[in-house]
Amino acid sequence: MPKLFSTRLNEAIISKKCSLVVGLDPRVQSLPEELLAAAISMHGNTLQAAAAAVLEFNKGLIDAVSDIVPAMKPQLAFYEQLGVAGMQAFAETVTYAQEQGLLVIADGKRNDIGSTAAGYADAYLGLTELTANESARAFACDALTTNPYLGSDGVKPLIESALHHSGGLFVLVKTSNPSSSELQNLVSNGKKIYEIVGELVHTWSRDYLDGFGYSPVGAVVGATFPAEAQELRTIMPHSIFLVPGFGAQGGGPKDVVPCFNTDGLGAIVNSSRDIIFAFRKRSGDYKSRAREAALESRDAINKALGEAGKNAW
Amino acid sequence: MPKLFSTRLNEAIISKKCSLVVGLDPRVQSLPEELLAAAISMHGNTLQAAAAAVLEFNKGLIDAVSDIVPAMKPQLAFYEQLGVAGMQAFAETVTYAQEQGLLVIADGKRNDIGSTAAGYADAYLGLTELTANESARAFACDALTTNPYLGSDGVKPLIESALHHSGGLFVLVKTSNPSSSELQNLVSNGKKIYEIVGELVHTWSRDYLDGFGYSPVGAVVGATFPAEAQELRTIMPHSIFLVPGFGAQGGGPKDVVPCFNTDGLGAIVNSSRDIIFAFRKRSGDYKSRAREAALESRDAINKALGEAGKNAW
Repeated sequence: MPKLFSTRLNEAIISKKCSLVVGLDPRVQSLPEELLAAAISMHGNTLQAAAAAVLEFNKGLIDAVSDIVPAMKPQLAFYEQLGVAGMQAFAETVTYAQEQGLLVIADGKRNDIGSTAAGYADAYLGLTELTANESARAFACDALTTNPYLGSDGVKPLIESALHHSGGLFVLVKTSNPSSSELQNLVSNGKKIYEIVGELVHTWSRDYLDGFGYSPVGAVVGATFPAEAQELRTIMPHSIFLVPGFGAQGGGPKDVVPCFNTDGLGAIVNSSRDIIFAFRKRSGDYKSRAREAALESRDAINKALGEAGKNAW
Repeated sequence: MPKLFSTRLNEAIISKKCSLVVGLDPRVQSLPEELLAAAISMHGNTLQAAAAAVLEFNKGLIDAVSDIVPAMKPQLAFYEQLGVAGMQAFAETVTYAQEQGLLVIADGKRNDIGSTAAGYADAYLGLTELTANESARAFACDALTTNPYLGSDGVKPLIESALHHSGGLFVLVKTSNPSSSELQNLVSNGKKIYEIVGELVHTWSRDYLDGFGYSPVGAVVGATFPAEAQELRTIMPHSIFLVPGFGAQGGGPKDVVPCFNTDGLGAIVNSSRDIIFAFRKRSGDYKSRAREAALESRDAINKALGEAGKNAW
């Protein structure tokens, strides 16, 4: 029996003493100029050039932080916008990160129903069946984000595949953006929508617990709404929270503390721009600056957790 | 000033006298055996082979129905599950369909916020900026489906790009699947969530009307819930409904009538399996069977519209 995704993630968090994950959101306009220029001199001013620069950038970042963080979170939009070449760069990024011992969370917020949802599961969590006895790997990552608006029909095929392939799922519950309240904070029968979604996630997650008491079915809960995170922590005790909104989006180390359980586990905090584009603020080599920024963020989160008495190590 | 997407779609609907669109959901296991076998003999039992078979299948389908229907709706999951080769087949499918005069609606239900949402817009509706004076086409389709759970922050960047590139958007409002009610039918302040989303879509759509009185900002409203569709038709008078759930999912010609306005416009009805895999039920050449099935569905919808006094032609 292979390990559950939550086991793999929790073991990596504990051995690295780190709850930070790095978001690989390689906006072309923000890449190091010399990297882009070199790719353009080889491929012309094309999507191929941009994708080649992105892949090299990502490999450098992975090398810079692979001993620090448990996982990377590539945001699919930034690869899709580079077309087929971008998806190739995505696939190679995933493989490279996994070869360096990192877990990869594909942030695609994919959502659909039935056999279509199963198609996304094949693409990002499992294998694609070609014929009765032959399967192949499309973009096999370790976990995928998903959107719950379609209800259980959309999420259950993903959970099934995740469990089968030792993968994980993070369901959007309360997102970090200002307008997340438009739908997520509406009140129905005395409960906010995000609480109702949290309860659904709890029912989906509670039957598959690892030795740490966590499930491969996690939740996305933004760092920008600590009070809501506190509530949701109670509603979904077994789900690992993937926490966006830290750093550039405004959430600080203290804001993420409510996302954690008292065991010091139960959350991973994503930071993208502040790490991968740290060289833009501090100047110098992008890899060294990313490593420094990752260490600082890791330490700031650990310090805040320690002060709150939520220590895992 | 280029035409709005809704103008382009309405003109195609009227000139072809057809509100049916064909969903390109090429499940590998359901492809014609001889097509898959030929591809495997060339590429081995690989994702490349499956993608090559998918592309040939799609081209055959496009040839078979391009004079009948206004648009094709490829479902991205079935291309992503074939990896990079699948995305290449998707890109070539889009180009081929557009060359045959068809509009292409990418059914990806993409959703994210701010600059990430803008990345999806670049990928599927617009162009990707490489440097200050160079842009390139990733998967430029004519329209994209999106999921509203994140609120306005997620949808507005897509609308902006759609308007800029003469593209369209279809926002999930009330989906066709059984569990769609879990969240979409919850009641807040006396209104169902799908009604509230419908009102949001109305505010996003009403400022960009074409000569027919329609907007490039449309809505996904399932054929399986005709009473809800009736309500939503009133809430979003200017939005074109993309209607899934017709055929294989259970919705019949009469069920889709409430999605249309009295002018006979305002909706496109998607059918996937019943058209593209018609040869599995009727035997024979997949192209001829798809063409027959498309003509029958078109006629059945037109008949139901005629009987309801909703005639556009």
